[in-house]
Amino acid sequence: LTTFQKCSFCLGNIPLKWCYDTQNLEWLQLHSAGIDPYNQITDQKFVITNLRGYFAESVAETTLAGILAFYRGIDRLAVLQNNKKWVGNAIRPSLMKLHRNSIWVLGGGSIANKFLDLIQPYNCTVVQSPLRELIMNAHSIEYFEERAKNADLIVLILPETPETTHYLNKEKLSRINPKSVIVNTGRGSSIDEEYLKELLLDNKIKGAILDVNEIEPIAESNSIWSLPNVILTQHSAGGWDLENRGKVEFFVKNLNNFEQNHPLENVVDTARGY
Amino acid sequence: LTTFQKCSFCLGNIPLKWCYDTQNLEWLQLHSAGIDPYNQITDQKFVITNLRGYFAESVAETTLAGILAFYRGIDRLAVLQNNKKWVGNAIRPSLMKLHRNSIWVLGGGSIANKFLDLIQPYNCTVVQSPLRELIMNAHSIEYFEERAKNADLIVLILPETPETTHYLNKEKLSRINPKSVIVNTGRGSSIDEEYLKELLLDNKIKGAILDVNEIEPIAESNSIWSLPNVILTQHSAGGWDLENRGKVEFFVKNLNNFEQNHPLENVVDTARGY
Repeated sequence: LTTFQKCSFCLGNIPLKWCYDTQNLEWLQLHSAGIDPYNQITDQKFVITNLRGYFAESVAETTLAGILAFYRGIDRLAVLQNNKKWVGNAIRPSLMKLHRNSIWVLGGGSIANKFLDLIQPYNCTVVQSPLRELIMNAHSIEYFEERAKNADLIVLILPETPETTHYLNKEKLSRINPKSVIVNTGRGSSIDEEYLKELLLDNKIKGAILDVNEIEPIAESNSIWSLPNVILTQHSAGGWDLENRGKVEFFVKNLNNFEQNHPLENVVDTARGY
Repeated sequence: LTTFQKCSFCLGNIPLKWCYDTQNLEWLQLHSAGIDPYNQITDQKFVITNLRGYFAESVAETTLAGILAFYRGIDRLAVLQNNKKWVGNAIRPSLMKLHRNSIWVLGGGSIANKFLDLIQPYNCTVVQSPLRELIMNAHSIEYFEERAKNADLIVLILPETPETTHYLNKEKLSRINPKSVIVNTGRGSSIDEEYLKELLLDNKIKGAILDVNEIEPIAESNSIWSLPNVILTQHSAGGWDLENRGKVEFFVKNLNNFEQNHPLENVVDTARGY
């Protein structure tokens, strides 16, 4: 038996195949909120807990940071600064205000709810669609169009499940208003990224702010790097200086529960997918 | 007489010396909120109105956009994107959260108040010092230190007046906590920028987010461009796509007042300086 095969509990997102090899594992504490790829386990013999809620503040902050950067030109100004190039007033007509925008938020988890808190002061018109509602209406293009048609921002904060995979498929993407900016701080699999790139290149969608991508890391040859209307945050949204310390603290707290046979916190339902 | 000398009213920030040459000017509508350099006029023979309040939303949005970019690494990620370089997880420990920070806001005008609205959801500890209070305590280093010592963010949103010029002088700058980030979306003259640069270079101040600078445009040779802990937004904070349309609309409304001998809106007190 390997060391891992002998373990009764584990902290960390281990390789999927270890989950089948294990002999003694009773409890797996993930250090992520997403439970992919462990939702593929069919014959689960141990409890899985995740960090649901733990990343709400940091991901919500990056979601808004990306939006405000896009609207206020921060990404372009950073590149200009890097080139020591002053443009001044010339950039002003290309800036936008977030105030009084229409925003469609897809997702009803802790991150989405925290994001709603952060945008409260901007007097926006906000529609929120929790995952269950999206799944229920997955085959209704009318449902999608009604919510998408006036949205300045379409913000995806969804877990990876069979139903969310390519939720934004070609059909839905092609019906998005050219004035809309798409934001994804959930999972990269939610969007048909190759088709999104085509639409962005042709300005059929105004812009995209992507913390997550279908294939990570993004290859140097991927044309998405060069699209001027895209902000890429490289799956950093969950991070902050004290992130790892807090993860260990959560694990230690749950380990206490485990050792005293108390209920574990954040047990995930792998069948449901989050 | 030149065309301008014959004018009885004018929209625009004209050269200062025109203000002395004018024969008929009754009313000058500025297209800015700041009234510098017109506060230098000693023998004012005409009414000056400004766009007080007009930039509150856009400047407050850029103020927060700059802060969130600094905290969430958006400026660095934009440069990485420009270089097609993936760093991913490696950037996460250098990110910060705005939640529960201590913030000192210097200024009590419409922009500062709007900024306070926008940061309301982050559960920060906020102290606001209106200009009068700052002026009253201008010579008290104790007043300054007490407010500065625990501030994660020191946010200057002040007009240019004799009392705000180099408000952050060498003495005050040298007493700022090394963990503090300085933000200035008011006027560049408020800070001794040469000394600020020294402190930033030595990491005696954590960072700076500057929409305004002592000398604009910033020369290519200015070392401030290369400081990694600085975000420069090139005096763009007041701008947005519909900015000029709104300025003209305000002017037309005030012209109506002017022609009907109604009181003008936004008359400035040049002696006070805003």
